[in-house]
Amino acid sequence: MNRIKVKAALSAKEPREDIQINGWVRTKRDGKGFAFVEINDGSCLSNIQAIVDEGLPGWDDMPRVGTGAAVSIDGELVESPGKGQKWEVRAKALRLIGEADQESYPLQKKRHSDEFLRSIAHLRPRTNKFGAMFRIRSEAAYAVHKFFRDRDFRYVHSPIITGSDCEGAGEMFRVTTHDPAQPGAQSYEKDFFGKEAALTVSGQLTAEIFATSLGDVYTFGPTFRAENSNTPRHAAEFWMIEPEMSFCDIHGNMDLGEQFLKYLVRHLREHCAEDMALFAQWVDKTLDATLDSIENDTFVRLPYTEAIEILLKNAKTKKGKDRFEFPVEWGIDLQTEHERFLTEQHFKKPVIVFDYPKDIKAFYMRMNDDGKTVAAMDVLVPRVGEIIGGSQREERLDVLQARIQEMGLPEEEYWWYMDLRRFGTVPHAGFGMGFERLLMMVTGVTNIRDVIPCPRTPRHLEF
Amino acid sequence: MNRIKVKAALSAKEPREDIQINGWVRTKRDGKGFAFVEINDGSCLSNIQAIVDEGLPGWDDMPRVGTGAAVSIDGELVESPGKGQKWEVRAKALRLIGEADQESYPLQKKRHSDEFLRSIAHLRPRTNKFGAMFRIRSEAAYAVHKFFRDRDFRYVHSPIITGSDCEGAGEMFRVTTHDPAQPGAQSYEKDFFGKEAALTVSGQLTAEIFATSLGDVYTFGPTFRAENSNTPRHAAEFWMIEPEMSFCDIHGNMDLGEQFLKYLVRHLREHCAEDMALFAQWVDKTLDATLDSIENDTFVRLPYTEAIEILLKNAKTKKGKDRFEFPVEWGIDLQTEHERFLTEQHFKKPVIVFDYPKDIKAFYMRMNDDGKTVAAMDVLVPRVGEIIGGSQREERLDVLQARIQEMGLPEEEYWWYMDLRRFGTVPHAGFGMGFERLLMMVTGVTNIRDVIPCPRTPRHLEF
Repeated sequence: MNRIKVKAALSAKEPREDIQINGWVRTKRDGKGFAFVEINDGSCLSNIQAIVDEGLPGWDDMPRVGTGAAVSIDGELVESPGKGQKWEVRAKALRLIGEADQESYPLQKKRHSDEFLRSIAHLRPRTNKFGAMFRIRSEAAYAVHKFFRDRDFRYVHSPIITGSDCEGAGEMFRVTTHDPAQPGAQSYEKDFFGKEAALTVSGQLTAEIFATSLGDVYTFGPTFRAENSNTPRHAAEFWMIEPEMSFCDIHGNMDLGEQFLKYLVRHLREHCAEDMALFAQWVDKTLDATLDSIENDTFVRLPYTEAIEILLKNAKTKKGKDRFEFPVEWGIDLQTEHERFLTEQHFKKPVIVFDYPKDIKAFYMRMNDDGKTVAAMDVLVPRVGEIIGGSQREERLDVLQARIQEMGLPEEEYWWYMDLRRFGTVPHAGFGMGFERLLMMVTGVTNIRDVIPCPRTPRHLEF
Repeated sequence: MNRIKVKAALSAKEPREDIQINGWVRTKRDGKGFAFVEINDGSCLSNIQAIVDEGLPGWDDMPRVGTGAAVSIDGELVESPGKGQKWEVRAKALRLIGEADQESYPLQKKRHSDEFLRSIAHLRPRTNKFGAMFRIRSEAAYAVHKFFRDRDFRYVHSPIITGSDCEGAGEMFRVTTHDPAQPGAQSYEKDFFGKEAALTVSGQLTAEIFATSLGDVYTFGPTFRAENSNTPRHAAEFWMIEPEMSFCDIHGNMDLGEQFLKYLVRHLREHCAEDMALFAQWVDKTLDATLDSIENDTFVRLPYTEAIEILLKNAKTKKGKDRFEFPVEWGIDLQTEHERFLTEQHFKKPVIVFDYPKDIKAFYMRMNDDGKTVAAMDVLVPRVGEIIGGSQREERLDVLQARIQEMGLPEEEYWWYMDLRRFGTVPHAGFGMGFERLLMMVTGVTNIRDVIPCPRTPRHLEF
């Protein structure tokens, strides 16, 4: 018998004798002298139907073949007379491999809430929705690598444990071999690394090392925030993609961001059509329109100053009410409501806002000639808001030093980062994209816990 | 001007007018009324040579164009009359973008020791050797993803922060928002996750969740060991690849391991020929022979018990001396000297040892019918020793429970792992391969610090 996966069986070109299908039972229906068994093996969303006739080898086990049971079926792949399926399996023998007790198995045919499924994250990929989600997640990761490799970018594994708290983005987790539950202070001098250590919040500074040696590079790895906020958009552990390009300015950076998003959407629609359709049908009816826009519309490129003007002009609704909760003026960081107004209502397509006030942005962003703004950019998409944030980096040693001093950062910590400017400095630029944000964008799922295999949030560390 | 990368220029099919080359100067030689400038942009190992004639725009900056300086050259791509290079650039203009002070720039033309280069890990990818290394690392990661995707495996991001210390492999780092340097005990109840948290040592248990739902899966992510050992083969942070297959036994697992190694070697030899040649020439003269063997020889499959017999027969050298430092008897864990004898001297090719004594292996490995051995396997390759370790997993709930009790492990911690056996259990198998070990294997580099962008070892947390 030749084992084939359900995906291969369902896309067969012709009937086949002597195949073996291994998988888990999704449903079983008993007929007169036979049973229909729907089998899924995780290779695709669809099940394959097997017809098992009474008296076949294994028939005696049929009472124990219920939802969730693992079975192996030998048979023929034949054209299905039924609707909605081209192929089915006519069984010659069935083996029950692993039973699933119908009283205690948590995944019965009824629909389960996302909350409940989070409590059984070890079983939820066996459902249609989460099976589809994690197949899409896998393919999206592949598409990221393929996009960059096709463009001759090199993949860099930036370190996860870091000794610098100068990455400049949010609260960090400590990494230690000391036990804080022990009484008495324990010195970092005696810790594993001989100094304070933390989990990285960004691979950017490392990416800059490699951009200024290998040219175009990217990181794609886990990053961490110890922020004690329980929101649907924040997780303590998430994956981030950070390209970095030498000999590149803010405009090249915007080009890359736009191409990247278009590529990912196109790739996933092509390679995950069946799984994507589940989300368009059951999770977000506007999903296809959003993805059409990302794929086909030219992204608006909007200086921050003009964005503020637009927001000010639209501060009141037609009915004269305040449109925004947070007041708008030049110098503010855009709030989600502002971003969503620009991309969803004003332009109705993706918008790249650039040249932000220096005071709301990080020290490493390149100072513009106006002395007031830096060459930062955020890509905003409908429904999601900010999906990409990046900048051209300050490549001028003296300007960077002045910024570090101005912001009161510990200059000595940056010695190697300065060296990149001291020796053969070049204009360079890059951005970061949260991988989970991307998955929320392409599926319409609104809770980050539902796009991560084992999500980590405050007080949640199961599985 | 159209910027092209050095790699593209050197593989041009025909001459081109109006190109721009951006990169860093590796060497400059002054002639009479002109200068040769060798430029590297990280896109490949080779430099491209530019001829800059006296009086061209930018010529006045030439005294400041030294090793390490960043330059941009406009010119024509023309056939080179020189030896060893097909193309060169005849400059029309040169711009000095970033100077590198020749007194203080650490990377001068002379050869530097690996030790020294580790102290400037932010600059070492600008050398030939480390540029080649990190291009190979990038391509190897791509090859890993491509191998699995071509075979319909799904990529799973297993969690980095874990609440279970039951992954069963070595010392773990703690993850906390407490500060152990503070006096007084701090309770884990009040920590970020409300319980003890650690950095993962393996994604296997998570991979089993997804193998028993999506079918064939793999993880590829960072893993951590807090072992305070300073050896050339150990790092505190390293990347690991862990495939896991449902409906698969130890033999299918061995097949996959062998195919995987052959594929990776073949892929890298094809796609990184120039970079690999550097290591074969300068780092390890036996490299090509080793890689030939991995690529072309059928791996020996050797039960542990037979391996012990072979070692016992060869316990003495021809001259009657003890061959091994560690005594051999049935039940021992094989030492590196034993593994290397089998693969380098006895068989002279890769060897897969399988069916190890249960007492030296982890609780989750499948018990064989003999009651003494488990379905574990290690792949040994010449010069490197163990490159892959894996097993068929215990899929029988009662046998697994008995093992967990026998080994005194906290059964309640494994409730979800047990569930995978409780509901639709299936035979499944997988293995782990250290990504850095692979890189050491394909380059001949013997210190793990030299295959990682920013290595983490005891008391080393720079960059």
